[in-house]
Amino acid sequence: MKRTLGVCYYPEHWPESQWAEDAARMAALGLTWVRIGEFAWSRIEPTPGTFQWDWLDRAIETLGNAGLKVVLGTPTATPPRWMLDKHPDMLAVDEQGRTRGFGSRRHYCFSHRGYRAESARITTALAERYGKNPHIAAWQTDNEYACHNTVLSYSQSALHAFRDWLAQRYQSPDALNRAWGNVFWSMEYADFNDIALPNLTVTEANPAHTMAFRRFASDEVVSFNRIQTDIIRKYSDAPIAHNYMGRITDFDHFATGADLDIASWDAYPLGFLSDRLEVTPEHKRRFVRQGDPDFQAFHHDLYRAVGRGRWWIMEQQPGPVNWAPWNADPLPGMARLWAWEAFAHGAEAVCYFRWRQAPFAQEQMHAGLLRPDSAPAQAFHEAAQVAQELAAMPDVDCARADVALVFDYASAWAWETQPQGRDFDYFRLAFAFYRGLRRLGLNVDILPPDADDLSAYKLVLAPGVATLSEPLLAALAKHKGASLIGPRSNSKTPEFSTPVPLPPNLPNLRATVARVESLPPDVPVPLTQGGNFLHWREKVETEATVIEATADGWPALVATGGLHYLCGWPDEAALDRILTTLCDAKGIPTDPLPEGLRRRDSATHRFWFNYNAVPVERGDITIPAAGVHWEKL
Amino acid sequence: MKRTLGVCYYPEHWPESQWAEDAARMAALGLTWVRIGEFAWSRIEPTPGTFQWDWLDRAIETLGNAGLKVVLGTPTATPPRWMLDKHPDMLAVDEQGRTRGFGSRRHYCFSHRGYRAESARITTALAERYGKNPHIAAWQTDNEYACHNTVLSYSQSALHAFRDWLAQRYQSPDALNRAWGNVFWSMEYADFNDIALPNLTVTEANPAHTMAFRRFASDEVVSFNRIQTDIIRKYSDAPIAHNYMGRITDFDHFATGADLDIASWDAYPLGFLSDRLEVTPEHKRRFVRQGDPDFQAFHHDLYRAVGRGRWWIMEQQPGPVNWAPWNADPLPGMARLWAWEAFAHGAEAVCYFRWRQAPFAQEQMHAGLLRPDSAPAQAFHEAAQVAQELAAMPDVDCARADVALVFDYASAWAWETQPQGRDFDYFRLAFAFYRGLRRLGLNVDILPPDADDLSAYKLVLAPGVATLSEPLLAALAKHKGASLIGPRSNSKTPEFSTPVPLPPNLPNLRATVARVESLPPDVPVPLTQGGNFLHWREKVETEATVIEATADGWPALVATGGLHYLCGWPDEAALDRILTTLCDAKGIPTDPLPEGLRRRDSATHRFWFNYNAVPVERGDITIPAAGVHWEKL
Amino acid sequence: MKRTLGVCYYPEHWPESQWAEDAARMAALGLTWVRIGEFAWSRIEPTPGTFQWDWLDRAIETLGNAGLKVVLGTPTATPPRWMLDKHPDMLAVDEQGRTRGFGSRRHYCFSHRGYRAESARITTALAERYGKNPHIAAWQTDNEYACHNTVLSYSQSALHAFRDWLAQRYQSPDALNRAWGNVFWSMEYADFNDIALPNLTVTEANPAHTMAFRRFASDEVVSFNRIQTDIIRKYSDAPIAHNYMGRITDFDHFATGADLDIASWDAYPLGFLSDRLEVTPEHKRRFVRQGDPDFQAFHHDLYRAVGRGRWWIMEQQPGPVNWAPWNADPLPGMARLWAWEAFAHGAEAVCYFRWRQAPFAQEQMHAGLLRPDSAPAQAFHEAAQVAQELAAMPDVDCARADVALVFDYASAWAWETQPQGRDFDYFRLAFAFYRGLRRLGLNVDILPPDADDLSAYKLVLAPGVATLSEPLLAALAKHKGASLIGPRSNSKTPEFSTPVPLPPNLPNLRATVARVESLPPDVPVPLTQGGNFLHWREKVETEATVIEATADGWPALVATGGLHYLCGWPDEAALDRILTTLCDAKGIPTDPLPEGLRRRDSATHRFWFNYNAVPVERGDITIPAAGVHWEKL
Repeated sequence: MKRTLGVCYYPEHWPESQWAEDAARMAALGLTWVRIGEFAWSRIEPTPGTFQWDWLDRAIETLGNAGLKVVLGTPTATPPRWMLDKHPDMLAVDEQGRTRGFGSRRHYCFSHRGYRAESARITTALAERYGKNPHIAAWQTDNEYACHNTVLSYSQSALHAFRDWLAQRYQSPDALNRAWGNVFWSMEYADFNDIALPNLTVTEANPAHTMAFRRFASDEVVSFNRIQTDIIRKYSDAPIAHNYMGRITDFDHFATGADLDIASWDAYPLGFLSDRLEVTPEHKRRFVRQGDPDFQAFHHDLYRAVGRGRWWIMEQQPGPVNWAPWNADPLPGMARLWAWEAFAHGAEAVCYFRWRQAPFAQEQMHAGLLRPDSAPAQAFHEAAQVAQELAAMPDVDCARADVALVFDYASAWAWETQPQGRDFDYFRLAFAFYRGLRRLGLNVDILPPDADDLSAYKLVLAPGVATLSEPLLAALAKHKGASLIGPRSNSKTPEFSTPVPLPPNLPNLRATVARVESLPPDVPVPLTQGGNFLHWREKVETEATVIEATADGWPALVATGGLHYLCGWPDEAALDRILTTLCDAKGIPTDPLPEGLRRRDSATHRFWFNYNAVPVERGDITIPAAGVHWEKL
Repeated sequence: MKRTLGVCYYPEHWPESQWAEDAARMAALGLTWVRIGEFAWSRIEPTPGTFQWDWLDRAIETLGNAGLKVVLGTPTATPPRWMLDKHPDMLAVDEQGRTRGFGSRRHYCFSHRGYRAESARITTALAERYGKNPHIAAWQTDNEYACHNTVLSYSQSALHAFRDWLAQRYQSPDALNRAWGNVFWSMEYADFNDIALPNLTVTEANPAHTMAFRRFASDEVVSFNRIQTDIIRKYSDAPIAHNYMGRITDFDHFATGADLDIASWDAYPLGFLSDRLEVTPEHKRRFVRQGDPDFQAFHHDLYRAVGRGRWWIMEQQPGPVNWAPWNADPLPGMARLWAWEAFAHGAEAVCYFRWRQAPFAQEQMHAGLLRPDSAPAQAFHEAAQVAQELAAMPDVDCARADVALVFDYASAWAWETQPQGRDFDYFRLAFAFYRGLRRLGLNVDILPPDADDLSAYKLVLAPGVATLSEPLLAALAKHKGASLIGPRSNSKTPEFSTPVPLPPNLPNLRATVARVESLPPDVPVPLTQGGNFLHWREKVETEATVIEATADGWPALVATGGLHYLCGWPDEAALDRILTTLCDAKGIPTDPLPEGLRRRDSATHRFWFNYNAVPVERGDITIPAAGVHWEKL
Repeated sequence: MKRTLGVCYYPEHWPESQWAEDAARMAALGLTWVRIGEFAWSRIEPTPGTFQWDWLDRAIETLGNAGLKVVLGTPTATPPRWMLDKHPDMLAVDEQGRTRGFGSRRHYCFSHRGYRAESARITTALAERYGKNPHIAAWQTDNEYACHNTVLSYSQSALHAFRDWLAQRYQSPDALNRAWGNVFWSMEYADFNDIALPNLTVTEANPAHTMAFRRFASDEVVSFNRIQTDIIRKYSDAPIAHNYMGRITDFDHFATGADLDIASWDAYPLGFLSDRLEVTPEHKRRFVRQGDPDFQAFHHDLYRAVGRGRWWIMEQQPGPVNWAPWNADPLPGMARLWAWEAFAHGAEAVCYFRWRQAPFAQEQMHAGLLRPDSAPAQAFHEAAQVAQELAAMPDVDCARADVALVFDYASAWAWETQPQGRDFDYFRLAFAFYRGLRRLGLNVDILPPDADDLSAYKLVLAPGVATLSEPLLAALAKHKGASLIGPRSNSKTPEFSTPVPLPPNLPNLRATVARVESLPPDVPVPLTQGGNFLHWREKVETEATVIEATADGWPALVATGGLHYLCGWPDEAALDRILTTLCDAKGIPTDPLPEGLRRRDSATHRFWFNYNAVPVERGDITIPAAGVHWEKL
């Protein structure tokens, strides 16, 4: 498949006289795609019901005539100010009860039925007008669902929708009371209308209550998005995408993904390193201008799964951004490296964000391919190089992996609801396992929690999955390869109780978690073979084979056949050993990599990515600082 | 006196078919007590005015028939959801003005008159029905007053009650203005109804205003509790207890204690170490699975004072709990050690919390004596051992101490109101002195702030008591033993002004605190004899004997006869020296103990408690890790 | 000019019988000034419209008859409780939407029109009565504007006033939309009444919106103050002052200063060191009882500029205060040193706060010249010494400096609005440059941002000034001396956009900031000549002379003629070298000083101030710990 480049553009930000030259420069640079429209509602419908299509018609025409394909976004992340006059109660409310006002973006509550109708109305108008436009080659719904913590709203709209959702799920208050264990602390309800949102309680709410709210809130995103995809499909055959973000777990991306054709994500490696990773200060310092060596790859593999194979980068960081605690300038080469890494993981397209740095408003410090004065910025030249390189090797087909990692959004909600130890975070745990696989030079596939066929994989990991689905349990039971389950996997029922018989309740594995302990980061639990459990350990009674043990005499890794259960959160040394042993046993070749060097095999090539600020030697090749190297397989 | 064991049980959580077997196992384990009922309101009165006694009748009957004595709790900590329909404004409001909603527990404002009536109503109903039941051998009011910061409420109910309280105390606004110094910053009031609660002011409120609110809030707990005790006494002769918590100073426990027969507390050593102690990271790490070596003992001695000799542990941690930042698994032996330490300090009973770990709701990660699958957990076996040991030595009578420490709840409010230095905390200060005494191997008695007879003690300590009461000042004046007063003691009038003549104003001690300084933790004030003052020091002008001095030439410890005033907050080295010197002078034998080893003498035995994770040698005996040793005196 | 001492006094706090003795002691101590009245509204007007002047008449008479000159304050910082009955909505609202209640001080919103009328009413009443009183020799408006974060209010009053302010500034919503770039994220407004205050938005508000609000809020303080100055001038010829605080940048002091005759500030060196300086723990420890060696001097020079030459210390810390995180006791000598340092910087008067420590209310732990028992405190004796020394050298005329530093309040708002890196703070940056000059032993003048004549200065610094004013740009263009502009200077338009052509756009300096990076504190950017950029660096393309470069090959300091642009935030080593080189080039003698020793030249003397706790040798003189030394120039 041919891989392509693109860019995000806001024609409404610039004089119309500049559009044609911009379009020509984009095409000359070698770009294929241009994404527009996502925040333009106030220009499309300046007053309620009055549409101004002319400028957008001309913008699409100008871009299309330059040979560019247009991705058209629905503008529902930024309803205009007049929308509040129609729907004064459409705003979300935060956990502290404060209404989240107009003046930036994402100022709506997913549960507000009036705003859903408005969202349908503008989507219909756009799809009607441009559904058959030959330049519109893809769609994007809304923008970055969940960004700025917008999934959870504690509004009256959310409250009423939640009660309806509960009534649908449980049918009777008594059923709900039993499911949640509301006899505890006399929390029993007589009517669904007695149930409040689980914020501002005196102490923690019932975790079953909180989990129900988290499931509901995720469902609200899914149904909000589906309204748009249903409408667009009526009018257009072009594929539909949404641009997800990094480390967002507040809603189930697999569920929204089921209604989309393409998953895409907005890759800001330096922002994410600065903002949302639990790493050492040394690690942050080392990669301050390159980004974390595994974070992008994880999301590439995740969104490939969410998109069932089809995925893009919709926004690629081109230079310093404006929103992280600190905003460094990427090393020369990184804007190329990041793009190639995406292609190596199967991205169909990589779009840089944005064409020209805006001199005004919130993102005026966010770099583009052009500076505000239209001079090329650093990434402009790197994008040009990638375009030329792609011309020479357009087909970078994605290779299947030997190893798969299950990723489950509901588990993120579960352990936020009940961390039990302050630093128990699901993403952190899953990402630690992913990173361990990457350190061994492995391609990884990510699987949804209801995966029902593991036959392609020699090794499957499922750490921290709160409730293993029936299909996955069945697949594990008949899996011929190895699997590594735990810690904390399958330790909750779907209603967020502790199962009896006790966890992990795995097929054919006779093991019981007698009790667990969460531990401060400075209290390791040493393993007899080296390394430690950190944060979390379980005391397991078992008749299965004890493969590893803790220094205090408890099983650390138990197995029956290929099914392994891990009884704690391993540090790097322990994880590397355990993964290597499992890979060796299953004939998966491993290649322990030096820090900051990563590799990924496509169907035809082996790609090397050097995230270090200095060159790295690998055999007889030298990969330059911030450099990419590929070789035929 | 015979010491006993017990357990907390929630029959409403389990199928009735399981009750009899549970009861039989409790009895077989050697338990005497079972506490029930405290959160069961929604099952006792499922709809307003409709009582369902039958299940509770049968539960009591079943437990009693198994030979167990029942402690029956009033369920007022968990009013059912329907209560909010009757009293929509009964909820507490936090300092930020947010209503604290239904969905967990303790969702009531102590000042709400309607809820007080409901509390009286359900207490009356319970007491009427079970007051003469032969199986009901004790009562518990409500549950853990103050837990989850519930003493201070900023509701309208609290506001109106506070104004009434002020009117009673001051009689006229002018008197209040004079008492508080409201001429300052033009804060004078013309009417009691002009006075607001002291939250959300632009900068700090008048400390006299805040202190009045703290006294009021404590009084509200006392009167709330008294409503229940008055009712129960009408119907029952069984003793009444309340289960206090650790390091809770928001209300005056001596004042509630005066209305109770027994003081009890809920001892969670690992949770408290993780959650509420200012200790070094090394200390937390060292005792992560054992708990702090002095924290339990302090509370044992404190509640012995609150209960005027009669005290229990109503809830004893049996394994990992769910509510601390991290929740480790106690070392094998600790569930036994903690119980024996309580008995050595005079506990009449120790009840483990809870019988069986619940698989649902908020506390599903809180261990019990049984696992959720009814298999015995670690503590089950340790409780059995304690039961057997108690059978061999049931009488562990409490010994009088040579040393007493005054503990004053109002001083905690005082220094929260006006810390003057960020880390000046009354509990921390008092506990530091207590710990110093324990390091010397001493038994300690704790005294209330209005103690009027010190004759039994060779040494009395009263650090940081904001206002020394008239009875205590009189007792100090005639005390034959030594006393150690200060720092900061007697530095406030009862209306929270600075007394003139200046503090400390002690009988016969000619000394004046000219000025004080609070200091960051890294700015010590060295003493000439070694050690330092930390956090706080006072510059004292005196004609008394200067026993110790600071390196910068100010008095550090002054005395006239046995009355000593300490001019700063001593570090461990300074405190150990000063206490040792005082003990030596008064003929109190001291025995400096190694870290983590503690001892306590009962009337007949010397008990050793090893909080370390390794054995400790002491003379010719070896106390095992997490072990207890006793010997005849 | 003769320099004088004074004190702050609250006659309403003390029995009238004590006033005469207090006044006599003040006079005997050598004080000239006594400030009164600022918080006395509830005593002047106990009920609405009923004035009680008699006590104030007598207080002024008593003080005046003792030979003291009275500074009379307007009491508008503390409206009495009854004011809330007249104007229930007069309170400010904080950024979280919480009303800031009565019970302390500064409980009013600057934008409330009703309270402005009340403020005018009480000021008129005072000025009418005392405008010609011979003892009233100066006035003070209100007290410490901005203290306790009171400039920014999110009340309805503020909202309506802000909309009016916007309508005045922009004339049409379209003009505002264009100026702010509201096309971004569809934030366009159709009506000024659609615009909200920029708090509680979902993510950051448009920085142009926030900056407009900041400008508005500053203007509100200015107009509030002007109401009072206009009234007072009608009735009195005495000069008018306001007492500013340290490191307050929430409003433009130059703008309020234009309506005043004298700038004064409240100097609390130990409180400020503890509370509001980004310094190392070692630095805080070293100067814990002396205060920062440069913080006071900075404010002296700043307020000399604000007062156009006339400035006082209205409140001088005399001993421990009550409001900082920790409150140490000043070293003996500091109360004298601070006063002399103020005089050396040109202060006309230094007034200690306060005469006698109050035993009640919020400031009962705040020292005075007298203790609560009327005994002299430490500072009493030091004030006496200063009075005697002043008698010997009353004329301490201020010397002009060779070096000037531009200080711009709007830049503080700019970088709070858009720090881009978490630790980019304007005051911190400007103060770092000031400190660098002080380390070289230099006198410094501070200039307002619209300075239009630089001819007196050999060196002018303007780091971080967001928008260089037209007059300043013109003055820089013709400046014969050296100037050092940047980092980040002139990088915003007046409407808070990025200028095109790109910054810095300096006269005759061909340089373009291609992009910037903000950096965590542990990521330095080394300079080839030593030292580093920290926090912030810019990548500049230039045809000017590159004087210094970074180790990674970018210009660090560029210049055309005397105009220098600095491309990052220098650490101490880099700054010292750069400043020394510039001074050397311009013939400004420098004298690198040891830590804690500072000097300042008056017109006739060189003063040395030793902020260390140990003596310092300097040539053949020894300056004692906490000591002052002066010598004839």
